[in-house]
Amino acid sequence: MNYGMIFYILGMASGFEALFLLLPILVSLIYGESVLSSYLISCGICALFCGVSTLRKPKKITLYTKEGLVAVALVWIWFSVFGAVPFMLTGEIPNFFDAFFEVSSGFTTTGASILTNVEALSRASLFWRSFTHWVGGMGILVFILAFIPNKGNGTIVHLMKAESPGPNVSKLVPKIRYTAAILYAIYFGMTLIQIILLLISKMPLFDTLCITFGTAGTGGFSIKSDGCAGYTMLQQGIITTFMILFGVNFTFYFCILKKKIKQVSSMTEVWAYLAIIATSILAITFNISGGFSSLFQAFHHAAFQVGSIITTTGFSTVDFNQWPGFSRTILVTLMFVGACAGSTGGGIKVSRILLLLKGIGREISLALHPRSVKRVRMEGRTVETEVIRSVNAYLALYMIIFVASVLIVSLDEKDLVTNFTAVAATLNNVGPGLGLVGPAGNFSGFSNLSKLVLSFDMLAGRLELIPMLMIFVPSVWSVKRKKK
Amino acid sequence: MNYGMIFYILGMASGFEALFLLLPILVSLIYGESVLSSYLISCGICALFCGVSTLRKPKKITLYTKEGLVAVALVWIWFSVFGAVPFMLTGEIPNFFDAFFEVSSGFTTTGASILTNVEALSRASLFWRSFTHWVGGMGILVFILAFIPNKGNGTIVHLMKAESPGPNVSKLVPKIRYTAAILYAIYFGMTLIQIILLLISKMPLFDTLCITFGTAGTGGFSIKSDGCAGYTMLQQGIITTFMILFGVNFTFYFCILKKKIKQVSSMTEVWAYLAIIATSILAITFNISGGFSSLFQAFHHAAFQVGSIITTTGFSTVDFNQWPGFSRTILVTLMFVGACAGSTGGGIKVSRILLLLKGIGREISLALHPRSVKRVRMEGRTVETEVIRSVNAYLALYMIIFVASVLIVSLDEKDLVTNFTAVAATLNNVGPGLGLVGPAGNFSGFSNLSKLVLSFDMLAGRLELIPMLMIFVPSVWSVKRKKK
Repeated sequence: MNYGMIFYILGMASGFEALFLLLPILVSLIYGESVLSSYLISCGICALFCGVSTLRKPKKITLYTKEGLVAVALVWIWFSVFGAVPFMLTGEIPNFFDAFFEVSSGFTTTGASILTNVEALSRASLFWRSFTHWVGGMGILVFILAFIPNKGNGTIVHLMKAESPGPNVSKLVPKIRYTAAILYAIYFGMTLIQIILLLISKMPLFDTLCITFGTAGTGGFSIKSDGCAGYTMLQQGIITTFMILFGVNFTFYFCILKKKIKQVSSMTEVWAYLAIIATSILAITFNISGGFSSLFQAFHHAAFQVGSIITTTGFSTVDFNQWPGFSRTILVTLMFVGACAGSTGGGIKVSRILLLLKGIGREISLALHPRSVKRVRMEGRTVETEVIRSVNAYLALYMIIFVASVLIVSLDEKDLVTNFTAVAATLNNVGPGLGLVGPAGNFSGFSNLSKLVLSFDMLAGRLELIPMLMIFVPSVWSVKRKKK
Repeated sequence: MNYGMIFYILGMASGFEALFLLLPILVSLIYGESVLSSYLISCGICALFCGVSTLRKPKKITLYTKEGLVAVALVWIWFSVFGAVPFMLTGEIPNFFDAFFEVSSGFTTTGASILTNVEALSRASLFWRSFTHWVGGMGILVFILAFIPNKGNGTIVHLMKAESPGPNVSKLVPKIRYTAAILYAIYFGMTLIQIILLLISKMPLFDTLCITFGTAGTGGFSIKSDGCAGYTMLQQGIITTFMILFGVNFTFYFCILKKKIKQVSSMTEVWAYLAIIATSILAITFNISGGFSSLFQAFHHAAFQVGSIITTTGFSTVDFNQWPGFSRTILVTLMFVGACAGSTGGGIKVSRILLLLKGIGREISLALHPRSVKRVRMEGRTVETEVIRSVNAYLALYMIIFVASVLIVSLDEKDLVTNFTAVAATLNNVGPGLGLVGPAGNFSGFSNLSKLVLSFDMLAGRLELIPMLMIFVPSVWSVKRKKK
């Protein structure tokens, strides 16, 4: 294990967190809030740690795969721990487990909250909370590494693989560093367009920024107690559209910009994603139409909630916990499906679901013709056996983490729907669940142990399981490095 | 598709069902019940169909894999349809969907019931209901085929593979026909021992037979409204023991009889199964101890319920729907785990869970050492890649059938726990779930559509998914047979 390099990376991460903390400091200056000192101290701590740990450059800067995975996991935990400091210092969230839960929820773009009254927070804290979504959306580490001079592609590929959502990373251009840069540019651009549109729709600037950060990262922290219910239909419509857009594989936009029409039309995952959204919206619209004054109203809220849940954003305009069972079941199913690979959304990912379906198709076909050779193809290319195998292992691992988490959380003696959807909402980075953790509820009623487990689920879900598990494998921590 | 042979097999199956129906006829004669005529007519219909369809022996008697799979699925549906006739004729269950549900539940050894008052049934019908468990436990078709003269092993292997629970069939002796005979002998023997023990414990003969059929097949239909609550502690203890014993891979008993100690000790699945049972009983005992007068009482009921649920029998001594959330979550988890492969129990099966875990282990190990070659080993042998792949596809298919079923059932607007556990209890062939379908409830409140879906789930669960899906694949039904 290359401890030197990992320590160095953690230092760099703290440095960036110090920079990020300048924004809430600015907000508290603008609004003249007393929390300024807490944010200054937090920023100082981050900067200090950064200074100490980057004093000496490590001798070896290359990372092996396992070291890359561990580095990713540690940086995300690190970010969440340091990000929790200001909340504890301001006294707004005094308990460490609560603060850690809230900030993990932010960085992992989950949007689950332990706060019972979000409007009691200072402007600076509201801003910081929403901003963590935006930082976490595209991945922390790849962003950081873009600033570290590095000779080879290797290290970044490992880290990007571990940090970006979906079964495999598609390189847009030969150099992985440029790929990252292009993705960030698309992310910035779309964020900017949403901000402009919301400002045109007359949303206040502070709301616009916070809501856009939550949409872009598919996070879902809201700054009002009633979620997004208080905004106009037009504003809600803009949010719906952008939630769905941020759940699309960013490669899709790259291909559109480059006018690669053939590639755009062959992106099965994106079309399947849009088809699932359309079907779900229609089914829910008809199921809930009785409860709304017009079919359009029902459609409007169905679209908002479907877009919010499948992209694992978690904003809400109505309390869908009150909807009929059929609609709620669809929403719970969408929590697991999740958005496209290569987007900022969470969940199992549409591409994994497609690969699982194709794997089943192959199995049935083999039962019919035992001696035939069948390859799984997707988006015009043959899928490597390893990808299928790792998708299957992913599903199995996912199920096991899920069951173990529900078992631990059930010690709190809440009802089964609350336990089940609390784990579903955190492991898939959705945010709200049903029952006590529905859109009108929150996660404050859980024990510290449950909050820790759910925080772990959020981090494991965001990093696609393997990196977080790595830190529990003892052999990973051995000092000796294998000779090549 | 070899329609001739499949029609012939269906005819043979009807013949056997006519024979099986002689037993309830005997019961109604003994108790002088008026349902006698209904059972005589049902028996006659089966015999008539058998006569018509076995008049002409088919030219080709070999079956290809896909034909074997379809034959298995059709025989089970056939058996359930014909088995439902007496219930409709006696007027005890007039609705076809209800009667079909009840009998599918019997043959698939599920034990889910649509009856609101089981004690209102005639003795003959109670006996028939329980006897279907015993017939379904070891598989219908292999039993039938043992009586059809056949030249090759091939056909029987296909059918046995499709009908026997677990990822692969282990041959005990070179000839598959003898393997089947040995398994049936063990099944008969253990059934007999349980009958003798229950009679010694002074259970009435009628109860003894019905309860033993339900235990041996891991079915779980009870003949009392209060389930097994009315029996003595000793009788409940005997039932607990035999439920757990019938959930063990029968190969285990074969090895014990043959004194193959080394093989016995290397059967990882059985030991894992027993370890899961022990852990679950302990955890639940402590969790529920407050509600019982002594720790032994809590242990007694925890053991009964754990044994009942993990083997997917479904008997109950108490209403575990009232137990704390932690215990209920353990029970729901055990529903999915299920018993050993090669037993009469249902669920995903312990061996599949072990293979999934090993698959995850390999994936993590590959993440650590990307260039290493790693084979999955179980019970001292290397597991073939195809087995792992098919186990993974099984899990994926399982999840998809599960979600689709919950979605359809949720149209009935019951609560989420009821919908979720109703599907879990039928797809895993357990019987009772939680909520409205808990041990004190029943499945009568569902719509005909839901009952049909849940019946399908029971059959799909019992036949391990693939055979039931085959009948929906259009190409399976093409008349032309591929040339070799």
